[in-house]
Amino acid sequence: MISSELPKNRPNDFTKAILTVEEIIKLVREKGDKALLELEEKLDHMKLDSVVEDKIDELASKISPELKEAIDYIYEQLVEFHETIKPYNAGGNSKGVEFGVIWKPIEKVGIYVPGGNKAYPSTLLMAGIPAKVAGVNEIYAATPPSKIDPVICYIAKKLGVKKLYRLGGAQAIAAFAYGTESVKKVDKVVGPGNIYVQAAKFLVSRDIGIDGIEGPTELVIIADDTAKVEDLILDMRAQAEHGLSTFIVLLTTSQNIIDEVKRELESDRNVYYVVKVSSVEEAIKIANEISPEHLSLYVTNPKRYLDIVSNSGAVSLGSTPPAIIDYAAGPNHILPTNQWARFRGGVTVYDFLKPIMYANLEKPDEKLIQSAIILAKHEGFEFHAKSIGARYGR
Amino acid sequence: MISSELPKNRPNDFTKAILTVEEIIKLVREKGDKALLELEEKLDHMKLDSVVEDKIDELASKISPELKEAIDYIYEQLVEFHETIKPYNAGGNSKGVEFGVIWKPIEKVGIYVPGGNKAYPSTLLMAGIPAKVAGVNEIYAATPPSKIDPVICYIAKKLGVKKLYRLGGAQAIAAFAYGTESVKKVDKVVGPGNIYVQAAKFLVSRDIGIDGIEGPTELVIIADDTAKVEDLILDMRAQAEHGLSTFIVLLTTSQNIIDEVKRELESDRNVYYVVKVSSVEEAIKIANEISPEHLSLYVTNPKRYLDIVSNSGAVSLGSTPPAIIDYAAGPNHILPTNQWARFRGGVTVYDFLKPIMYANLEKPDEKLIQSAIILAKHEGFEFHAKSIGARYGR
Repeated sequence: MISSELPKNRPNDFTKAILTVEEIIKLVREKGDKALLELEEKLDHMKLDSVVEDKIDELASKISPELKEAIDYIYEQLVEFHETIKPYNAGGNSKGVEFGVIWKPIEKVGIYVPGGNKAYPSTLLMAGIPAKVAGVNEIYAATPPSKIDPVICYIAKKLGVKKLYRLGGAQAIAAFAYGTESVKKVDKVVGPGNIYVQAAKFLVSRDIGIDGIEGPTELVIIADDTAKVEDLILDMRAQAEHGLSTFIVLLTTSQNIIDEVKRELESDRNVYYVVKVSSVEEAIKIANEISPEHLSLYVTNPKRYLDIVSNSGAVSLGSTPPAIIDYAAGPNHILPTNQWARFRGGVTVYDFLKPIMYANLEKPDEKLIQSAIILAKHEGFEFHAKSIGARYGR
Repeated sequence: MISSELPKNRPNDFTKAILTVEEIIKLVREKGDKALLELEEKLDHMKLDSVVEDKIDELASKISPELKEAIDYIYEQLVEFHETIKPYNAGGNSKGVEFGVIWKPIEKVGIYVPGGNKAYPSTLLMAGIPAKVAGVNEIYAATPPSKIDPVICYIAKKLGVKKLYRLGGAQAIAAFAYGTESVKKVDKVVGPGNIYVQAAKFLVSRDIGIDGIEGPTELVIIADDTAKVEDLILDMRAQAEHGLSTFIVLLTTSQNIIDEVKRELESDRNVYYVVKVSSVEEAIKIANEISPEHLSLYVTNPKRYLDIVSNSGAVSLGSTPPAIIDYAAGPNHILPTNQWARFRGGVTVYDFLKPIMYANLEKPDEKLIQSAIILAKHEGFEFHAKSIGARYGR
């Protein structure tokens, strides 16, 4: 289906899941493993003895040589990406103060790899590699037990994952947040999932870190008349593979592209929003409003437009297919949706590091000390002022 | 009061505030300004015509020359700190892919400056300057109306704050998150506050960005026998100025320090946890478990211990008084509490920037393309595979 008008709003509401998930979290906190086993039986229809997958080695060895080689190669590429963008300790001196930040890895991280009928080993790569590059010591992973993919096990081994848990949905997030007899309590949980996972991540975010709350995936393509319409159609159909709630927009200056895309995609079940624009700049303005997860700039000389892109998770430039970012280009596919790109980027090495600030005032500037004392006194913090003053002979 | 044993846990529970705050958020979303004026009358006992402070210029001009000079000087220092640590766009090439991140500022930010009987202009400096250095275009601020401090107005002008709202507590956070006729909806809200502010930040974090949920302030001091006991006592008393819920710990290798601190502070109303340790290393291990907001390393050659500090918001080195970080050293005083230092740092320029990832594959490596296709097919995403393959003649 084609719509030539963008929707006014796109609610992604996990509210209806909240009550259910609150109950699940309560159960997991109260009854630990027992609750997990009961929930797996009830929700995933799996009767388990333990939520810990203890056959990782055996399963991992079942990976095909072709997939093994593919994973190894992609792994290298993602490591290279996060190594390229990672931060370094920074410091300086100003007004007699030596200051800076040291970046330290989070110690314990939980990765949620969604599943069900399918398995998404690429998500374990996308979350695990930036954690690894950051230097996270203990990486744990959870995935629904109905299908434990050998490729997931292979990647888990490669990443040095401490434990792989056979846990789906909200119960996996709850277990990571509060710990059970078998599941390690972590400092931060990362990864996409359905509305139950989203609701769970929101609820546990008062106690542990989360990467964000990822909703249905989104793609905005901006195309000028140099774009190949066959490519655009494939990109839109690829995005549509994520289901009917996926949001797919094509903004183009070319009437010819619009006509051809309409003809080809009109009878598809997904809705494709196809909108004529007068310029690439106008399209980027619209895209910034939408703040899409994926943005494709299929235009001439795309890099110069990066300057005016303000809100997006990941941008594929020129004829680069957005789908390559989902698998192998380097950037992540765990990205902000629902306009979260207004205030955060996708998952990178930064999600697994934190800047610890420090200051050393051996011989501070007189006026800086005086200024601090004046402001502390103004706020009524006499002992703050005294503790500063006494140090420097005031 | 002195305790020689650390508490098992320190619950900071805003649960009891949640129901009240849900009601406030609902009112603000439904009735906009009308709700804000009613809430200010009910909760802050202020009858307002408008929540917008329209006398900023007039009020700002009332700042004393002494305070003006102090603010100007501190402002320079904080700018220098965030300029020193800010990120740069990073990019590279690997396996035929040109990739990287471009850092873009958040567009609209709301800063909550707590108040009530007192005013905390330093908080506006601490939140506003990293936003400014990041390049945030629209900064808004809110502070309870009972006392609009000229110093806050002066700083607001200096930062180019678009509007200063006379709003306290949960209603300020709700207004920033959802907007009203007078209050601009922002992309992220930053700043400390009481349990109502904490609960509100948690609740709105499903829709906008937050810096964190800051609870009562915390200080862990690690002192060897070179530390001056008078300094330690002042630092502990300064921390105690934040109220009875403040958490104050001294870990020291020196029995002499313990004896003197006990004698001096035993009769104070605050609880001070004073614990003997056998080494600085042991103390840092305990501190990492606590993950304190402020850490003071009042020991010989403190910088070498930074390597083994893993969880803390800000560290003052050597005889540097922790209070100088609250005002003027450079690092922030808006810092993670309640063990949030396990997974995030304090507020920096990074809180107002987001890394947008990009990739350009003009002539990608054959094997990378092949690997992506293999993995996409394994996951059952045929059109993902096709959209990649078609581009590169497969």
